[in-house]
Amino acid sequence: MSTLIVINPNSSHTVTGGIDVAITPLRSFGIPIRCLTLAEGPSGIECQRQADLTIAPMLELAAAQTDAAGYVIACFGDPGLHALRDQTDLPVIGIQEAAVVTALTLGQRFGVIAILPHSIPRHLRAFGAMGVLDRLAGDRALGLGVADLANPHTSLDAMIATGRQLRDDDGANVLIMGCAGMASYREPLQEATGLPVVEPTQAAVSMALGQIQLDLSHKPQSTDHA
Amino acid sequence: MSTLIVINPNSSHTVTGGIDVAITPLRSFGIPIRCLTLAEGPSGIECQRQADLTIAPMLELAAAQTDAAGYVIACFGDPGLHALRDQTDLPVIGIQEAAVVTALTLGQRFGVIAILPHSIPRHLRAFGAMGVLDRLAGDRALGLGVADLANPHTSLDAMIATGRQLRDDDGANVLIMGCAGMASYREPLQEATGLPVVEPTQAAVSMALGQIQLDLSHKPQSTDHA
Amino acid sequence: MSTLIVINPNSSHTVTGGIDVAITPLRSFGIPIRCLTLAEGPSGIECQRQADLTIAPMLELAAAQTDAAGYVIACFGDPGLHALRDQTDLPVIGIQEAAVVTALTLGQRFGVIAILPHSIPRHLRAFGAMGVLDRLAGDRALGLGVADLANPHTSLDAMIATGRQLRDDDGANVLIMGCAGMASYREPLQEATGLPVVEPTQAAVSMALGQIQLDLSHKPQSTDHA
Amino acid sequence: MSTLIVINPNSSHTVTGGIDVAITPLRSFGIPIRCLTLAEGPSGIECQRQADLTIAPMLELAAAQTDAAGYVIACFGDPGLHALRDQTDLPVIGIQEAAVVTALTLGQRFGVIAILPHSIPRHLRAFGAMGVLDRLAGDRALGLGVADLANPHTSLDAMIATGRQLRDDDGANVLIMGCAGMASYREPLQEATGLPVVEPTQAAVSMALGQIQLDLSHKPQSTDHA
Amino acid sequence: MSTLIVINPNSSHTVTGGIDVAITPLRSFGIPIRCLTLAEGPSGIECQRQADLTIAPMLELAAAQTDAAGYVIACFGDPGLHALRDQTDLPVIGIQEAAVVTALTLGQRFGVIAILPHSIPRHLRAFGAMGVLDRLAGDRALGLGVADLANPHTSLDAMIATGRQLRDDDGANVLIMGCAGMASYREPLQEATGLPVVEPTQAAVSMALGQIQLDLSHKPQSTDHA
Amino acid sequence: MSTLIVINPNSSHTVTGGIDVAITPLRSFGIPIRCLTLAEGPSGIECQRQADLTIAPMLELAAAQTDAAGYVIACFGDPGLHALRDQTDLPVIGIQEAAVVTALTLGQRFGVIAILPHSIPRHLRAFGAMGVLDRLAGDRALGLGVADLANPHTSLDAMIATGRQLRDDDGANVLIMGCAGMASYREPLQEATGLPVVEPTQAAVSMALGQIQLDLSHKPQSTDHA
Repeated sequence: MSTLIVINPNSSHTVTGGIDVAITPLRSFGIPIRCLTLAEGPSGIECQRQADLTIAPMLELAAAQTDAAGYVIACFGDPGLHALRDQTDLPVIGIQEAAVVTALTLGQRFGVIAILPHSIPRHLRAFGAMGVLDRLAGDRALGLGVADLANPHTSLDAMIATGRQLRDDDGANVLIMGCAGMASYREPLQEATGLPVVEPTQAAVSMALGQIQLDLSHKPQSTDHA
Repeated sequence: MSTLIVINPNSSHTVTGGIDVAITPLRSFGIPIRCLTLAEGPSGIECQRQADLTIAPMLELAAAQTDAAGYVIACFGDPGLHALRDQTDLPVIGIQEAAVVTALTLGQRFGVIAILPHSIPRHLRAFGAMGVLDRLAGDRALGLGVADLANPHTSLDAMIATGRQLRDDDGANVLIMGCAGMASYREPLQEATGLPVVEPTQAAVSMALGQIQLDLSHKPQSTDHA
Repeated sequence: MSTLIVINPNSSHTVTGGIDVAITPLRSFGIPIRCLTLAEGPSGIECQRQADLTIAPMLELAAAQTDAAGYVIACFGDPGLHALRDQTDLPVIGIQEAAVVTALTLGQRFGVIAILPHSIPRHLRAFGAMGVLDRLAGDRALGLGVADLANPHTSLDAMIATGRQLRDDDGANVLIMGCAGMASYREPLQEATGLPVVEPTQAAVSMALGQIQLDLSHKPQSTDHA
Repeated sequence: MSTLIVINPNSSHTVTGGIDVAITPLRSFGIPIRCLTLAEGPSGIECQRQADLTIAPMLELAAAQTDAAGYVIACFGDPGLHALRDQTDLPVIGIQEAAVVTALTLGQRFGVIAILPHSIPRHLRAFGAMGVLDRLAGDRALGLGVADLANPHTSLDAMIATGRQLRDDDGANVLIMGCAGMASYREPLQEATGLPVVEPTQAAVSMALGQIQLDLSHKPQSTDHA
Repeated sequence: MSTLIVINPNSSHTVTGGIDVAITPLRSFGIPIRCLTLAEGPSGIECQRQADLTIAPMLELAAAQTDAAGYVIACFGDPGLHALRDQTDLPVIGIQEAAVVTALTLGQRFGVIAILPHSIPRHLRAFGAMGVLDRLAGDRALGLGVADLANPHTSLDAMIATGRQLRDDDGANVLIMGCAGMASYREPLQEATGLPVVEPTQAAVSMALGQIQLDLSHKPQSTDHA
Repeated sequence: MSTLIVINPNSSHTVTGGIDVAITPLRSFGIPIRCLTLAEGPSGIECQRQADLTIAPMLELAAAQTDAAGYVIACFGDPGLHALRDQTDLPVIGIQEAAVVTALTLGQRFGVIAILPHSIPRHLRAFGAMGVLDRLAGDRALGLGVADLANPHTSLDAMIATGRQLRDDDGANVLIMGCAGMASYREPLQEATGLPVVEPTQAAVSMALGQIQLDLSHKPQSTDHA
């Protein structure tokens, strides 16, 4: 049966598992969803160079899924999004773009919680390409080192502190978690800030399921050759 | 059982029926959907004045739906969208904003097919408020009189001609139908232009179902009083 | 004699009285000005829902003024502005848009003093629709509760503190008072911040008088039917 | 008695005379208005170089008007606008900026009728500096040579043709005459296009009178030294 | 001796040769320049997928140039630009961004001549990420098939026709050739349109040489660890 | 031999000397460069009025350089930039625009270090006219009085403090020195902030030399008279 393929372009099975849990509520929509880990990916994607290097194996992994009904690329940064759209007519959604467009319906200005400061220029390029900078309240990094990021309590505390700063100093009305695999923090972050929080893999899977069900693709079948 | 409420703010049962058909594919997601006609609305909404005057009765109709899990306001122009968000914590989606944000994932520049030329300034104000004007290719009216609009063949022909103009003269990569109740034209329009076509009630219902299922609202429950 | 009609869409006669005083210097221009209170309005307009619900009775009140030469809608938020423009050919000015365009001639970046934090997303939607976000320095709320707002000294102190923050932290070169009926604070606020301060009803009445005198309307008489 | 000074920075008394007639309706506001011709200016201002060279003598002429209550610089392009604001605390309005901000209240997208194609990049720089490019429908030149421009019938015909093109091809809802001294064409242009037409000297004088009467300046008196 | 490395990421030696000729005038600046062909690249880059797949081998080729003083990525679309910046501290310039920023100094609105229509959305994403869409007049494709593109006369004719359309219909004041290796058309195109024409590899090499000479890099040596 | 003319529009020989030193590394490109001081200029340019008044004598000084191959106007604010482009077909570069477009290739958001707070609105108008506000992180003044500015240690300390604030509070990835003649601070500022620092006269001379060598002008020779 046609299946939505969610590709985690890093090699961390923990992250893929976190994505799988995050999207569980959407399984009731009736379309099978399969979450894949990119074996060739790095353990985490921290810069544009790492992101770009996942594209070639990701495209191959995507092409090998013969039962695909559509794809979600589950890395904030959407590496290879347009390359995969060149490769297939099926719906393809990036979690970054899905998180942003979902946030546009939940508050006037969105704040982004970045894991690493180095990601922020990359985000800004993407938001500029999307043409949504007028809706951006701010993009702030957690300010944690690698060791601290491994500690759930420290991470959640930093997320809440960053979320409150985006709310109070930057005027954010909605927050976006700038990373896959951290959906378990969504509810406490929402609770602690009073703002809606968009978990990007949830947003992307939700949009992808809708586009699959509505037969809506970036390249529809057509006889027009203008 | 909690139900997504879709309110057509004009009084045309034909339009409501068209919406009901349009969203049929999304009923398989398992959340009940009920489409309502606003008895107090005009037979069609042609200007901002008519749109604004639907807000008061629409808010009452919405409040009366005690089994609501969320709302879709099914008029391109999204009258009362933010008023209803003030009134309820449940997800509220406007078809105009949903069509636009969906189109953002399907092509770099979207073209809008307006029914009447008078609507275009209203659209532009909304796209400006949404901060997405950099993604707009163009917004063009069908150029039909009321009599011609009643004729499906003439309407479809005009839609196709307008869609091709948006594609060829304005550089649109995706089209938005600027009206509810015309979903039957989506496929032929897509076929004739080779571009993805977003039908706004489909886009809105799809987003609303996702937000309901993910318990994602513009006003989450919170204990934070900052 | 043809009269400029200024409608305060809330039911507070105190606010209407404050507007009346604010525009006194412009009475010397020779065009009669009549300030009306909307009996059906709430005592104060605090959200989009309240604002939208004033539109229907405001349109009726406007239509009943048979000697109207033009209209000013005297609520920051400009509820029903475009609806009233649909209803009449006479000049119609909203105090929010007039304050903003006047500020554009007085400083490179304008700061807005909002009464309530909840208003800010509404302002931002309006500034986006107006296409002037590049000129916005910031929009900050007074941070006062209802009781404090009733106290003139506390209010003025909060306005001055907010204005200085907009000037020093956000880089505002001109300030806009985001509310009708507070014109008495304009001079002390200007004095305390060294920035020009735009009182929105003054700005709107000034523009409306000019458009009336110049016979300049959004819908001029024309024989062209293109 | 304090007087609004309108400076035509070219040396054409015909243009100054045209300005004087254009603003006649605003004399009833009761503030004296004096229109001056800059003897040192060129007969017409056709490029940035000519515009910039008027600034030094214009500043001197302005400084010599000891009864000034405010100033209007009556050349589309607003040469020396910010220099004069550096020189004086009195209200200073440029006709280009006044025309644009007035147009913002009369239609969603404004079209500009330029006399010469060479002026268009200059206009676009100004609209960018003003941050209003999202509201610009188009800026088109008349396409006439110098001889044709001297002929009122040819000029009006070209204005109407250009205005219709801005309306029909570019989607303008309001037109701006990109030149001083042509106010006599405003009414026929409005009549022929069905769009409101902003004559820039009228718009500027109207705004200046309001600012004078409201004691509203870009540099208010203040004791604050922050 | 430290050398500027220019990498053509397609495998066409003809294109590399064209680049080599194009930049000849800049050899007199005294910094050695070496033009390389990416053996692993496709014969031509026509879509985002092809572009992205060049990144991995391009990064390796770049890393292997041990005498590099800086890099130019010579494909309009700038594939791998930020990835290479992650990999090296040396100056890295993309020909697309260099062409655009150079054009910003030569005319108010730039027009882009795209080889294939499919490239235009890719360009627009890049211009959005660069934040320069307000300066874009238009982006138009030549409208030629592969066979016609091989014919220099047909290509030049199409370039001139497209350039004139960008000038006359879209208001471009400066043109950008949206492709490497066609520098021989610059002069005739300039001659035929009267507009300055930016050849992107020339623009990029010129900027790279300046940054090398000024020791100006995106990652300067620093002891600051804030 | 054809020479690049760099005009310092203030009368300070110290500033001109500083510019001369700053551009020394670019003399190896082989094109003669001559730095001139505008005798008629003020000792420093602090406002738009002073800037505008330099234009007339600057245009004369430029016209008198019969061996000119191109021009750089070496005042941040670019006074007379477009006037000089009207006067000559040779390349003309302003240091402000060159600094900005160079910064666009070195970081996603640029921060500007202004000498005086009064300059900031002037900068913002220029960045708006350039259409690059989406790339601006912030523009901050040193906060020094005239006496402190004369002290190199105090100046450098203030520059470093301001640069760090632009980096940490505003998110700048690259810094621009908003003044000519301070190139000696570039390296220590870069070292202290870890960000690339653009010295505007260096950026401008580099671009001008490239355009001269490539025979690239805003007004190319052409036979086209469309």
